[in-house]
Amino acid sequence: MILFQCDYNEGAHPRVMEKLLETNLEQTVGYGEDGHCARAAGLIRKACGDDTLAVHFLVGGTQTNMTVIAAALRPHQGVIAAQTGHINCHETGAVESTGHKVLALPHQDGKIGAAQVEALCEAHLQDASFEHTVQPKMVYISNPTEYGTLYGRKELEELSAVCRKYGLYLFLDGARLGYGLAAADNELDLPCLAACCDVFYIGGTKVGALFGEAVVISNDELKKDFRYLIKQKGGMLAKGRLLGVQFEALFEDGLYLEISRHADRLADKLREAFRQAGFPMLAESRTNQIFPVMPDALLKELAGRYGFSYQERVDETHSAVRFCTSWATKEENIDRLIADLKRMRQAV
Amino acid sequence: MILFQCDYNEGAHPRVMEKLLETNLEQTVGYGEDGHCARAAGLIRKACGDDTLAVHFLVGGTQTNMTVIAAALRPHQGVIAAQTGHINCHETGAVESTGHKVLALPHQDGKIGAAQVEALCEAHLQDASFEHTVQPKMVYISNPTEYGTLYGRKELEELSAVCRKYGLYLFLDGARLGYGLAAADNELDLPCLAACCDVFYIGGTKVGALFGEAVVISNDELKKDFRYLIKQKGGMLAKGRLLGVQFEALFEDGLYLEISRHADRLADKLREAFRQAGFPMLAESRTNQIFPVMPDALLKELAGRYGFSYQERVDETHSAVRFCTSWATKEENIDRLIADLKRMRQAV
Amino acid sequence: MILFQCDYNEGAHPRVMEKLLETNLEQTVGYGEDGHCARAAGLIRKACGDDTLAVHFLVGGTQTNMTVIAAALRPHQGVIAAQTGHINCHETGAVESTGHKVLALPHQDGKIGAAQVEALCEAHLQDASFEHTVQPKMVYISNPTEYGTLYGRKELEELSAVCRKYGLYLFLDGARLGYGLAAADNELDLPCLAACCDVFYIGGTKVGALFGEAVVISNDELKKDFRYLIKQKGGMLAKGRLLGVQFEALFEDGLYLEISRHADRLADKLREAFRQAGFPMLAESRTNQIFPVMPDALLKELAGRYGFSYQERVDETHSAVRFCTSWATKEENIDRLIADLKRMRQAV
Amino acid sequence: MILFQCDYNEGAHPRVMEKLLETNLEQTVGYGEDGHCARAAGLIRKACGDDTLAVHFLVGGTQTNMTVIAAALRPHQGVIAAQTGHINCHETGAVESTGHKVLALPHQDGKIGAAQVEALCEAHLQDASFEHTVQPKMVYISNPTEYGTLYGRKELEELSAVCRKYGLYLFLDGARLGYGLAAADNELDLPCLAACCDVFYIGGTKVGALFGEAVVISNDELKKDFRYLIKQKGGMLAKGRLLGVQFEALFEDGLYLEISRHADRLADKLREAFRQAGFPMLAESRTNQIFPVMPDALLKELAGRYGFSYQERVDETHSAVRFCTSWATKEENIDRLIADLKRMRQAV
Repeated sequence: MILFQCDYNEGAHPRVMEKLLETNLEQTVGYGEDGHCARAAGLIRKACGDDTLAVHFLVGGTQTNMTVIAAALRPHQGVIAAQTGHINCHETGAVESTGHKVLALPHQDGKIGAAQVEALCEAHLQDASFEHTVQPKMVYISNPTEYGTLYGRKELEELSAVCRKYGLYLFLDGARLGYGLAAADNELDLPCLAACCDVFYIGGTKVGALFGEAVVISNDELKKDFRYLIKQKGGMLAKGRLLGVQFEALFEDGLYLEISRHADRLADKLREAFRQAGFPMLAESRTNQIFPVMPDALLKELAGRYGFSYQERVDETHSAVRFCTSWATKEENIDRLIADLKRMRQAV
Repeated sequence: MILFQCDYNEGAHPRVMEKLLETNLEQTVGYGEDGHCARAAGLIRKACGDDTLAVHFLVGGTQTNMTVIAAALRPHQGVIAAQTGHINCHETGAVESTGHKVLALPHQDGKIGAAQVEALCEAHLQDASFEHTVQPKMVYISNPTEYGTLYGRKELEELSAVCRKYGLYLFLDGARLGYGLAAADNELDLPCLAACCDVFYIGGTKVGALFGEAVVISNDELKKDFRYLIKQKGGMLAKGRLLGVQFEALFEDGLYLEISRHADRLADKLREAFRQAGFPMLAESRTNQIFPVMPDALLKELAGRYGFSYQERVDETHSAVRFCTSWATKEENIDRLIADLKRMRQAV
Repeated sequence: MILFQCDYNEGAHPRVMEKLLETNLEQTVGYGEDGHCARAAGLIRKACGDDTLAVHFLVGGTQTNMTVIAAALRPHQGVIAAQTGHINCHETGAVESTGHKVLALPHQDGKIGAAQVEALCEAHLQDASFEHTVQPKMVYISNPTEYGTLYGRKELEELSAVCRKYGLYLFLDGARLGYGLAAADNELDLPCLAACCDVFYIGGTKVGALFGEAVVISNDELKKDFRYLIKQKGGMLAKGRLLGVQFEALFEDGLYLEISRHADRLADKLREAFRQAGFPMLAESRTNQIFPVMPDALLKELAGRYGFSYQERVDETHSAVRFCTSWATKEENIDRLIADLKRMRQAV
Repeated sequence: MILFQCDYNEGAHPRVMEKLLETNLEQTVGYGEDGHCARAAGLIRKACGDDTLAVHFLVGGTQTNMTVIAAALRPHQGVIAAQTGHINCHETGAVESTGHKVLALPHQDGKIGAAQVEALCEAHLQDASFEHTVQPKMVYISNPTEYGTLYGRKELEELSAVCRKYGLYLFLDGARLGYGLAAADNELDLPCLAACCDVFYIGGTKVGALFGEAVVISNDELKKDFRYLIKQKGGMLAKGRLLGVQFEALFEDGLYLEISRHADRLADKLREAFRQAGFPMLAESRTNQIFPVMPDALLKELAGRYGFSYQERVDETHSAVRFCTSWATKEENIDRLIADLKRMRQAV
């Protein structure tokens, strides 16, 4: 059985493990105030081209989203997101558990646009009973999205502009950011994210680390007292240096993008094979998540040999599923799956 | 500089690291539903002598406390704890952030007694305006406590009995449980904890793991839907098997107690040296935390060579501080410190 | 200027005021534990035909919704509601502020159906990552709805059945319940509500009282400790007897339904006049809220003489607005408005 | 049976009732945006001598405390209060239910002092792990306190100064403010409260109104979006004008202080009688709450004829109880009680 259902089926990239092993018996202070965290934060600031950024390391994605959002909002304020956004669908109401409504908007392949945000803000401002509705104060987007798609540079700049116009924070969830930055059709880079967003995070868990997300804050308002919030929401790792060490490994010599490119290349190869075999995609993307639409009968057959995850029903006899590649995916496994797809095409 | 300020200055015990390395490229499903977690849970159930226990793995202590308490209480209910309890003092109000009041009681060297709990419950029941006050519904204790002290078997059984009498849950925070179970004056064991408590946790972060706490639930009411709560509170690790693997290493052949004994032995040795040098203890204990009371001048001198943490001011010229040993403490470092203490005694 | 924008433009029905005046200098204990509250609760239990019901009096609707929902749900549970439901739209995220997600469903004229609830529950149960999504545990409906429409008896019974099948609580918001029960096309009565719902409330604020909502709980699980929750959420009125006195006035000799009928009759008359004048309705209903669709130019003209509230844009030149009647509406004012509508028709 | 257990045993002062009756059939807009609320706010601003103050009307005390505190604090921040403070003892954890810890300090007859606040702030700032503890951000005091005592002008100014020094908000709970301002030993007035506090409230529920508290905000930071918070926390009364009308009655010609003086005069008379009869006071005060310490046997006897509330056990045979006067207390009832006390003295 070969698992493709997600990008966290394995542990960490060997160079990350090596570094953890090397530093294992070093003595450092706790809670992320050690030299490794300081150095990793410096590497990220440098990669973003802005040495005023605050950088904090948390353990996982839901925790990071919940902490950032709770830190930013007053009780009557909500966060705008795509209906398909991770915070709206797959975090067991973590954001609501901190008291805030997710203001869900219809999505286009996982994305939302500046015009939608503007319309929602205008509707709030013009509502005579505006104080009876949640005040929009933040926009949450994910890049790559839950459909593997990417925001173009113009799309991001427009979202940023509309957020500034209406006094909203822009927060980008980069749980799979590496696979976005390394994609063939990517238009973004870290300096542009730091400039457009008030806060974003660089995902480690799905991109080579055992675990860990690096939160990058550019807006001074959001920097204030952020460590209190990390502690309160349960995200302050006692041995915080584990996060620093891992992000050092990922950022000191380009490992983060190198392994992301590997995953994206294999995804492109696999995607092409699905297409050749006659299976359309639920959404177009060049990142590490692939969403082929297949007949249920063939999916059942595939499920005997491969792990993949169910996405959604398309019609009575077809479903969309998700295959992920990652830094850990072996080309031989992709080739084996491609051979099976070729055979299936013949069968069809 | 040798660090003694806490028991999380290093990474993980080499045997834990080895196991993480060995399993690193295995493919498993995420979120703790893998074979390693299942096996580790089985080992813990076996060590507790009760195969009906629910066992869950979380990342850190504050997160665990917050999740267990939020899972157990309705909005109007509070949790009784010693004023010195970790949830009351050192978690940035994490429990309150989930909506619950900590009902703090005076402590005796970090402990609270059954009579105190009974008195609080009786006062609540007899209060004519009881509905205007928080309803006590859980008792939180830590063992070892924040002062390194231990509950005796009778003390724990009495607390358990009073909790059952008044319909309260008993929750034991075992962040340093190994150092308690291995202490010379310990009277408890895992089966007794499982029998007395409704829920408790076995700390890994401070006892040999990179991170990780194993929550053990015996009360069926508290088992229901617990994984939803883990996810919502940000504690569901994507690569959950990392927790399983580490607890396998700690529990498959007695490593957990073995390394705890090491730490306790060195603590006993160091404690004796403090005493010999004329420095009294803030609280009596045989676990890995030592709280000597020393003149500020000598502390300043020690601080040049050793890391330790400040506990509290005792009088105008003396303070209590904390030295911790751990699974990672080297005997040579203890000896070096003892030599310095001997010299100081001569100086006094 | 004659105000029709809501059903709380005036104070209380004169018989309610009279009773408040009569009892004003009586001495009673506070917080709803007085004889008036007891008697009013008894009258409501009798009207519901079930003397096991718990009855509590709160001040306002948002407060009541928030308190009932927070009392019923565990942290990972959410409440299903129509997208147009008051809790989803017009309470500034009060439900989310207590930690719970509103699971919004598309509506049919303000209503949701049993099949929708069933589909949502099934999707949750069949989701492989169900623990990563909010668990549905309650269904919230309003009757009359925010569009003035009513649930039929069969619709309510089906909702009740599906809730029981999936272990959900059914909660009916009766802020305008009187206007529903008195409507020409109503099929429900209080005994049927008490039998179908786990909890519902009988609105006083909009139906003759100065303020006040009577919560009726039939499910024993929801009865437990409810007064603690009222206190914690700020709804326990010091002079609780004010609520008891008002509900005595409304329920001791049929005043509640009598004044509701008055409002519904005038609404029917006005609705017919809108239709005669050629203005269609946004939604069909026979209760006290009327939602005519009119040309913006005519609305502007009407706005000079009458207060009404804006509902939604229908097309570029037409909007839907809301006119309400109430226990306090004077027939002469309705007649004056009808005369204006007739003139407008001629103008069109 | 004559009730003295609280100051909300009756309805409203007749002049308040009259005004409610007079305005009952007026048509106004809802939610406090009517002319009565505007006029009442103006009267209060004038009485405070500051026309920049924001004034909002809420229904009850717990609701007001919860709303003000939730509006002011970020998630990691707590509110300092006396251990006896209403928010710490008698609101079923309402403040914690909004996510915030109450940082309780020892009290002196219900009061806390500037030096205590300073010490707590300094301890927080100097704690090496300050981010692991709740950040103090607000000081809550009540005046009169829960023991009927009053802050002197110098005490209040010192608290205000220490709050400004450490960036804390000062919030004064004036549930019984009238009885404080009218007391023989009072040193404060409304302008001084508006100058010293960032926010305070003028209690109506216990001082002549059916219900209602007027929140007065002087700090601009706290003014922002306050109405959203009122709505979210369930305190926005649909017929908001009821609050405006009542505060108009209380403030348009001095009724508020006039009726407070009445209560204080009768309390002084009763207090003197207790003393004459040989019963000491638990705390010294000149406001409307009296806390005599009496033998349990005599209390039992008194309980047959008078309502009073239990305060606390003093020794094995004595308890402190509370008698309240109010705007509604009749002198003949005080005289009757005094006669009984005289008789009891003879009996002792």
